[in-house]
Amino acid sequence: MSSHHIIRDKQEPALIIANGEACSMDILDQLLEWSPTVIVLDGALERVISLGIKVDVWLGDFDHSNNVDLSNYPLKKVHTPDQNLTDLEKAFEYLMEEGYPAVNVIWASGKRMDHTLNNFHSLVRYGRKLKIVFFDDYSTSFLLPPTFEKWYPAKTPISLMPYGEAFDVKSSGLTYDLNHPVLKLGTQTSSSNEVREDGIVKISYERGALILMECHD
Amino acid sequence: MSSHHIIRDKQEPALIIANGEACSMDILDQLLEWSPTVIVLDGALERVISLGIKVDVWLGDFDHSNNVDLSNYPLKKVHTPDQNLTDLEKAFEYLMEEGYPAVNVIWASGKRMDHTLNNFHSLVRYGRKLKIVFFDDYSTSFLLPPTFEKWYPAKTPISLMPYGEAFDVKSSGLTYDLNHPVLKLGTQTSSSNEVREDGIVKISYERGALILMECHD
Repeated sequence: MSSHHIIRDKQEPALIIANGEACSMDILDQLLEWSPTVIVLDGALERVISLGIKVDVWLGDFDHSNNVDLSNYPLKKVHTPDQNLTDLEKAFEYLMEEGYPAVNVIWASGKRMDHTLNNFHSLVRYGRKLKIVFFDDYSTSFLLPPTFEKWYPAKTPISLMPYGEAFDVKSSGLTYDLNHPVLKLGTQTSSSNEVREDGIVKISYERGALILMECHD
Repeated sequence: MSSHHIIRDKQEPALIIANGEACSMDILDQLLEWSPTVIVLDGALERVISLGIKVDVWLGDFDHSNNVDLSNYPLKKVHTPDQNLTDLEKAFEYLMEEGYPAVNVIWASGKRMDHTLNNFHSLVRYGRKLKIVFFDDYSTSFLLPPTFEKWYPAKTPISLMPYGEAFDVKSSGLTYDLNHPVLKLGTQTSSSNEVREDGIVKISYERGALILMECHD
C-alpha cells in the first residue's frame, strides 16, 4: 500500500508525544514507521512541528501561548479544560473514546521530575483500560497484567517496579527469580535483574501495580 | 577562611554524585561552593573527574571497569559489594556511619528510568534517617516529615507526590489547598500546585511517604 493511501483501522497503537525530554530520532522513526495517529500534548507542539512530524491531534487546555502558525496546518485541535486530569490522561481518555486499544508514548520522562513521576502514575491509572507503552532512549516501560509471558534473549535487563505496591510477585526465567509476598516503594523493589537465558520469562502478581522496565545504559 | 584551610565538621551536607543525567554547572557550582565531602557512585567517576571536580570518596562494587588513572589521585575508595543495596543506598549507609546528618544528591534522575524510580524509592527508604535533597535542572525533591513549614515566594510551583501512599494530607498556603484522606500513586497525586502568596506553606500528613517537589520548566 502506498504511503499516500493510508487507511487507519485504529488497530495500530496511536502515538502520544508528551512534553518531557525528546527521545532519539531512531526511536521516533521506528514508532512513526507505521503511520500511527499522532497526538501531541499542549506545550510540546512547537518542538514536534519543528522536527517535521505530521501531527493529527493537538490536545490540551491551551493555557500557554504558542508561536506556531497553524493556519495551513490541518490538525485536529481538541480542547480539554478539565483541571482534574493531566494532559496525558486527557489524551488517554480521548483515545479510549475514539476506540483505540493501544498507545505508545514518548517524551513522557525527563525534564520536570514531578511530571515524570506523574506520567508513570497515569500509566498505572489507565494501564488496565488501554495498552500503554512508554519509550525513551534508555527504557521501555509498561504496566504488567496479573500474568505475563514474553520471550526474551539472554541477559536482557529487566527491572520490576511496584508503583506503590504489588503483592505475591513470582517470576521464572530471570537470573534472580522472585517469590515475594510484597514489593513496595520505599521498602523493596526489584531493580536490575536480567533474563537468565534465551526463552520465556513469566511474571505474575495478585494485586497492586507492577511496572516492567526494559532498560539499558 | 581560605579555601586552602577547610575544616569539615560534617555539619554541612555531603554531596553525592550518582550516575544519571548530569546537571547544569550552575547547580554543581552552587552545591560545591561550601566544599562538601564529595562522594561519587561507581560508574560516574570518569564523568565527574573529567569535569575537574575534586572527589573525596568513590563508592561502589567496582564491577565495571573504568579508564581513570587514579595512581596520583588521593580519593578514598570504599568497596561495597552488598548486592541487596543500590550504590546510592550504600552511600547513604556510609554517610550515616560517618556521622553526617544531611546530604544533597545530584545526577540521580535522567537516563535509565528504572534507576530514577529506584533512586526516589531510596530517598523514601532513607529519608527519615538522613536529611536528603535531590537536585536536577528542573526539580528539587525531598521526603516531607509529618509536619512541614517553609516560607515560599508567591507562585512557586509545588507538587506533592505520594510515593506509594500518604494519609490525611493537609496543607495551607497553596492555591489549591489539600485536605485528602489519602493520596496514592495510580489513584490520586497532587501535581502542579503553587504557593498562593508570599508566606509560610504548611503541609502535614499522618502515615506513608509524601515527596515535595519544587519544579520549574
